[in-house]
Amino acid sequence: MRATLIYGAGDIRVENVPDPVLHEGTDAVVRVLRSCICGSDLWPYASKPAEEQGDRIGHEFLGVVEEVGRDVTGLRRGDVVVAPFVWADNTCDFCREGLHTSCRNGGFWGAGDVDGGQGEAVRVPLADGTLVELGVGEDSALLPSLLTLSDVFPTGHHCAVTAGVNERTTVTVIGDGAVGLSAVLAAKRLGAEQIILMGRHEARTDLGREFGATDVVAKRGEEGIERVRELTGGDGTHTVLECVGLEPALDTAFGVVRAGGTVSRVGAP
Amino acid sequence: MRATLIYGAGDIRVENVPDPVLHEGTDAVVRVLRSCICGSDLWPYASKPAEEQGDRIGHEFLGVVEEVGRDVTGLRRGDVVVAPFVWADNTCDFCREGLHTSCRNGGFWGAGDVDGGQGEAVRVPLADGTLVELGVGEDSALLPSLLTLSDVFPTGHHCAVTAGVNERTTVTVIGDGAVGLSAVLAAKRLGAEQIILMGRHEARTDLGREFGATDVVAKRGEEGIERVRELTGGDGTHTVLECVGLEPALDTAFGVVRAGGTVSRVGAP
Repeated sequence: MRATLIYGAGDIRVENVPDPVLHEGTDAVVRVLRSCICGSDLWPYASKPAEEQGDRIGHEFLGVVEEVGRDVTGLRRGDVVVAPFVWADNTCDFCREGLHTSCRNGGFWGAGDVDGGQGEAVRVPLADGTLVELGVGEDSALLPSLLTLSDVFPTGHHCAVTAGVNERTTVTVIGDGAVGLSAVLAAKRLGAEQIILMGRHEARTDLGREFGATDVVAKRGEEGIERVRELTGGDGTHTVLECVGLEPALDTAFGVVRAGGTVSRVGAP
Repeated sequence: MRATLIYGAGDIRVENVPDPVLHEGTDAVVRVLRSCICGSDLWPYASKPAEEQGDRIGHEFLGVVEEVGRDVTGLRRGDVVVAPFVWADNTCDFCREGLHTSCRNGGFWGAGDVDGGQGEAVRVPLADGTLVELGVGEDSALLPSLLTLSDVFPTGHHCAVTAGVNERTTVTVIGDGAVGLSAVLAAKRLGAEQIILMGRHEARTDLGREFGATDVVAKRGEEGIERVRELTGGDGTHTVLECVGLEPALDTAFGVVRAGGTVSRVGAP
């Protein structure tokens, strides 16, 4: 099959790799229907030292179950499934606490002998614990939207939940990228009535308004902080969802958070 | 009356100051029965630049209400009361959220025309919102213990509550000072079953065991981290209560916290 490999900064190649096959009874093989590029894929793309041997890349995908191992009980051939950020058993103590990234038996896509998500198919370890059935057919028009459930929307949701967003909290979202817009959507779903989106890409902030942002602040730095304070009677917001990851964004976060409030950071790097 | 004033590092004097009198109808005058020195009083004692004019100092005290203003409804002469870290109205939105330090109408002891706690008496602004009646007489043997409710115990308790300590969380407390020991006590009250106290003053860590510490780790740095990991099956603890405030203590906190866990910091400075 064809899959992407990264050989170094700016050097990603599509090559022939072995077709995935079941290694363990708990594996499944998934034919990829949709896959995308994460902001975090851009780090190695920008800075990875060149190597002779390419590494598989990609961790956001959904697809159709093609084959399951003998120990897989919750999935069958033909199911349309989405894969989360990591593969995990979904039964260990960490998973039970919602910390699948620390699963005692799990791991990352594209590491070791596990396929990356940017390829025609993927061997999925611990398939019962990892994959989530989507309940749609493989021709569904929703697939591009459902693909956001792999990583970007849950990241925004996690940011908002961790910050304690609810119907009594005001929210500032810093960053109008995919995660920032997901954070707006998540804050809206969690009931926040005032959601201030800080970003200056008009096409994105317009989408942010559609997703639930009540105010948009295009200014940055001290001016941006002052504007958020004006919008909140001088107090700042109870929660700040920092979805950029750079130092100035963190400074802004501390500038606009209300006394006793929470800054939740998922910005990368 | 007599009260302490700080003129600079190492220069604290007991002097005659005016007796407190009611300024506002919401004031009370409290005769101080017990007062103590906070760890945070040691910062100016160590580093305050010398000044001609001394500043009042002290913010941990309890005493007897001597006089109340005409608008004070919840207290009367003779009540034995404890004062918290700040004076506050206890009615504004910040106070209702438990953020009395951000009270819209409150302030700090020893600032402006408000007395410090280390003196024979104190004018207490917003007395109804500030003072808490203790329900004991002024000759009670409990007074020294009750004085800890002014600042040090609530600081440890706040640290544990903010970290989310409960009967399902394991806890590391870093620091065996008064706040660290209060944090042990708070974690025990909140139901934690494993409480690891990191400290190397044996008299204090013995008290820590009495307060509920299940393990004591006297080692510091990498060795200390390794020992906590041994005690937790390699995982570290769900919560870490950092009650020192110096960089190495923070490094230790990050070294012993479990994946997905919480580090709560009240260490000063």
